[in-house]
Amino acid sequence: MTAREIREKIARLEKKRLRDLLRRDFLLTWDKGREELEAILAIAEILRALRGENISTRFWDSGLAISQFRDNSTRTRFSFASACNLLGLTVVDLDEGKSQLAHGETVRETATMVSFMAEAIGIRDDLYIGRGHAYMKAVAEAVEKGFLDGVLEQRPSVINLQCDIDHPTQTMADLAHLVSHFGGIEALKGKKVAMSWAYSPSYGKPLSVPQGVIGLLPRFGMEVALAHPEGYSLMPEVLAKARELAAEAGVDLRVCGSMEEAFEGADVVYPKSWAPFAVMEERTRLAETGDRRQLEELEQRSLEHNARFKGWQCTEKLMSRTRDALYMHCLPADISGVSCAEGEVAADVFERFRVPLYRQAGYKPYVIAAMILAARTENPAAALSGMLAKAQNRSG
Amino acid sequence: MTAREIREKIARLEKKRLRDLLRRDFLLTWDKGREELEAILAIAEILRALRGENISTRFWDSGLAISQFRDNSTRTRFSFASACNLLGLTVVDLDEGKSQLAHGETVRETATMVSFMAEAIGIRDDLYIGRGHAYMKAVAEAVEKGFLDGVLEQRPSVINLQCDIDHPTQTMADLAHLVSHFGGIEALKGKKVAMSWAYSPSYGKPLSVPQGVIGLLPRFGMEVALAHPEGYSLMPEVLAKARELAAEAGVDLRVCGSMEEAFEGADVVYPKSWAPFAVMEERTRLAETGDRRQLEELEQRSLEHNARFKGWQCTEKLMSRTRDALYMHCLPADISGVSCAEGEVAADVFERFRVPLYRQAGYKPYVIAAMILAARTENPAAALSGMLAKAQNRSG
Amino acid sequence: MTAREIREKIARLEKKRLRDLLRRDFLLTWDKGREELEAILAIAEILRALRGENISTRFWDSGLAISQFRDNSTRTRFSFASACNLLGLTVVDLDEGKSQLAHGETVRETATMVSFMAEAIGIRDDLYIGRGHAYMKAVAEAVEKGFLDGVLEQRPSVINLQCDIDHPTQTMADLAHLVSHFGGIEALKGKKVAMSWAYSPSYGKPLSVPQGVIGLLPRFGMEVALAHPEGYSLMPEVLAKARELAAEAGVDLRVCGSMEEAFEGADVVYPKSWAPFAVMEERTRLAETGDRRQLEELEQRSLEHNARFKGWQCTEKLMSRTRDALYMHCLPADISGVSCAEGEVAADVFERFRVPLYRQAGYKPYVIAAMILAARTENPAAALSGMLAKAQNRSG
Repeated sequence: MTAREIREKIARLEKKRLRDLLRRDFLLTWDKGREELEAILAIAEILRALRGENISTRFWDSGLAISQFRDNSTRTRFSFASACNLLGLTVVDLDEGKSQLAHGETVRETATMVSFMAEAIGIRDDLYIGRGHAYMKAVAEAVEKGFLDGVLEQRPSVINLQCDIDHPTQTMADLAHLVSHFGGIEALKGKKVAMSWAYSPSYGKPLSVPQGVIGLLPRFGMEVALAHPEGYSLMPEVLAKARELAAEAGVDLRVCGSMEEAFEGADVVYPKSWAPFAVMEERTRLAETGDRRQLEELEQRSLEHNARFKGWQCTEKLMSRTRDALYMHCLPADISGVSCAEGEVAADVFERFRVPLYRQAGYKPYVIAAMILAARTENPAAALSGMLAKAQNRSG
Repeated sequence: MTAREIREKIARLEKKRLRDLLRRDFLLTWDKGREELEAILAIAEILRALRGENISTRFWDSGLAISQFRDNSTRTRFSFASACNLLGLTVVDLDEGKSQLAHGETVRETATMVSFMAEAIGIRDDLYIGRGHAYMKAVAEAVEKGFLDGVLEQRPSVINLQCDIDHPTQTMADLAHLVSHFGGIEALKGKKVAMSWAYSPSYGKPLSVPQGVIGLLPRFGMEVALAHPEGYSLMPEVLAKARELAAEAGVDLRVCGSMEEAFEGADVVYPKSWAPFAVMEERTRLAETGDRRQLEELEQRSLEHNARFKGWQCTEKLMSRTRDALYMHCLPADISGVSCAEGEVAADVFERFRVPLYRQAGYKPYVIAAMILAARTENPAAALSGMLAKAQNRSG
Repeated sequence: MTAREIREKIARLEKKRLRDLLRRDFLLTWDKGREELEAILAIAEILRALRGENISTRFWDSGLAISQFRDNSTRTRFSFASACNLLGLTVVDLDEGKSQLAHGETVRETATMVSFMAEAIGIRDDLYIGRGHAYMKAVAEAVEKGFLDGVLEQRPSVINLQCDIDHPTQTMADLAHLVSHFGGIEALKGKKVAMSWAYSPSYGKPLSVPQGVIGLLPRFGMEVALAHPEGYSLMPEVLAKARELAAEAGVDLRVCGSMEEAFEGADVVYPKSWAPFAVMEERTRLAETGDRRQLEELEQRSLEHNARFKGWQCTEKLMSRTRDALYMHCLPADISGVSCAEGEVAADVFERFRVPLYRQAGYKPYVIAAMILAARTENPAAALSGMLAKAQNRSG
């Protein structure tokens, strides 16, 4: 992209409404207006273009970003580290130990104590239904209080790096990938997406990706068919919210009972395993009482139940039902015959889409950086213009 | 603060004596002159003011700071990370494992090997009486030798992030808080401080905070009443040193046997649990011989003994004996009915002072940054002026 | 060094051939031409000189470096951290757990996923013969593919921080030390090096240092005598390669059966323990099958066998056979009576060379930084000139 094209993109960004972003957190995409989401995409695209031109996107000279991973993570950890590095923030990891439960006052105190220099707090907390989002809100309230009380000189923004409800950094990267694939955000209108459950020989995968997908893509005019075996339903309130958003956008969001049906005529397929909502709830209850034996029994029972749906695998045969669909996945995928005996996707399908899948993942650092920048500066367009101008002064 | 006010503060700093700071370590406050301590406060204040004006306090373009935590820490870890980030240093953690004992030659070699690019080494080593301070001195000697031998191109300064004897980054932050609360360093003269033991259902808390407080505050004209149950005395040599310093300053430092007595007419109260010196010594001996059973017996015995002093709790009733005193704590506090059944402080007292307590903690990153800057640059006033000038060139 | 002298060094660097370095990895010194190795030394020397003049060597404004340590490390970790810091890169550690075995597709995906902003990937993987180098090549191929596929916007370079075959950051630092000790690279010609096995009460030390030494020093005209007890031979293909390189350089590389013989008339001695190649191979086989008991038996057997060669210790008596030789070690050494009862070197010899040994280690950060810079910029001389010019603009 030329400097001129970047400048035009910045000019278009200047006109976008950003009021739901400044000094706010990014927890759920449906808390944000459509225009704000488009602004995030635009900022991400400009940051990527600047970097492509070897122009520094460093916004801060110093400043911390805090990461807290209450579940293992390699990809998201590196995406967050990359995003913060792009902007000039230094990541410090807050490792409280995964098992610790968060109590109100402790959360408030710890969140305040680590935030004296923090611009952003990235949290992954996806293991227990009813917990992750609540924890992120508690952290956000704590730093808001700290800021209002004059204890914190700046109000760090909490970025949801995956919770029990939504996975906005993933789905916004997915959206960027779709925009690139179809050639513009307008081109998404009317496109059909199959968000389908798929078999995996594992247990307890979060619901946040399918929930995030059905809560986001319909807002951009995409028709979503959600498919899963009986009993693998998502959180009812999220489904209700997604239906509401789809209705507002005037598009169809339907639930169906087979991968075949969802794939029929699809432009995009997103086959991915998740645990039934009911199992996740029981698991949270048992984790609280600490009954190890019952937890193991639940895992055993769930794995056995899962195994009844090994047919839910994305194969080339299934792909042939689609309109030459784009295969998507948040990675890592369970690839049949590669990472497991039988899994979410056949090896030939995965191999055909390996490069696009890696590109899909490549949007995440820019999306996260855009979320941070939009939350932490009054005028992101001016910040981006400044990066461009500084580079031109240097070379000029 | 305006740029003009900052410039005036820098001008006053220029006149201060700093010779005990340059290329030295910061291990104990009583190793430093009063003027040097005031200079640290002044530098911290200026750094804070610069940051408040959104002026970069980055002093280094690159450079490492090493942190070594031989005891768990979240707050101090983030304070050190924040301080280093403010100045442009990248923290690398030296994690040798908590249990490892330090031998002379190994300390020398490891300290040298990690210090080729290091400007500062922050160490927390507070678990064993007679060990932490000795270890820090060994590290300081190692890097001094490395520098004199031409192995190290710069001599990193060791910053005590809490040892068995003193906790200078805490008490200097406490001092900054007191200066702000009372409206100037001169206003501290004649103010009464109750440094009191308080009950906690825990065992083996370090003596460094009360020792650091009695060794520092009298030097600024504050009258300190140290209160604890029989047997909970501090290290005799530290008490002797504190008495000597109090005498020099012409103020009273007295030891009394009840919280009630210490609180009477106090302007400041600092109720906090610690382990008896004798118990800490026995624990160190037992840790050396590695006798697990005896260590557990000591813990059991100590907890039982502690429980006889549950009355040592900071309540509003006790607070009413004071002259509307400021309540201080290094955090986290054991709050009765919140973090434990019975603890150091009643929930209503803590809640009333929550915001000031968080502010107290907020001085620590600036104090640490000031210690590093004062140790690593010939002329801190010039360094601070440079930050101001650079910002004005940019905007000018 | 004055700015003028630095400028002259940069001018000489400009004439050197660097084509085997740009956008390549640094895995084995014998993959690189002699001129390229000299260029690395020159860049390292200039970086050191710039830093000595307090001139920033920051080349990147932002950017990541990934470190992956599949074996414990303190020194190399800090050397890599220092090198990256010198150049402006932020290190993020990829900690997969030491025990995990690398499978093709997983390596490709993980390497790509973490590399979106990465300029360099430093890997230590020295535990298993036949594994470390293969793993590094797999990572290098993955990021090469990612770059060619347009998934990665830049192609990070893999830096070998010690594998099963070579330890180039160590041996290049050793070479820089030798150049400094003898007063120039030309002065190395004809100098005699004793690379000797030495006794250590440990098991399974990698072969990479002796292999790296015999593969590197003969290329600069040094005559190497490799000494070890029967059965402690190195990898046959590495010995063959080293013989080929020595023959090309017209120097002698001989294997002898005693330390005494190797030390005779030596200008440099490098006595260091390593495990027999055959033992390392057996260990890798057993680690694969996971037979714990057999692994323990192998360790026991090896330690007993080692103990037959306690006479292989570097003493002053042995040193007297040399031509006032320089004693070298990659550290930490097993020092008799200090870090163990009987070890690689007598305490008096080690003490006499402690300062030079620390200096030897001090070259490593600069060598690593030089490897990264040479791999990541078209024209390192211009990059270094830029650092100098920027500093002069500032002070001018």
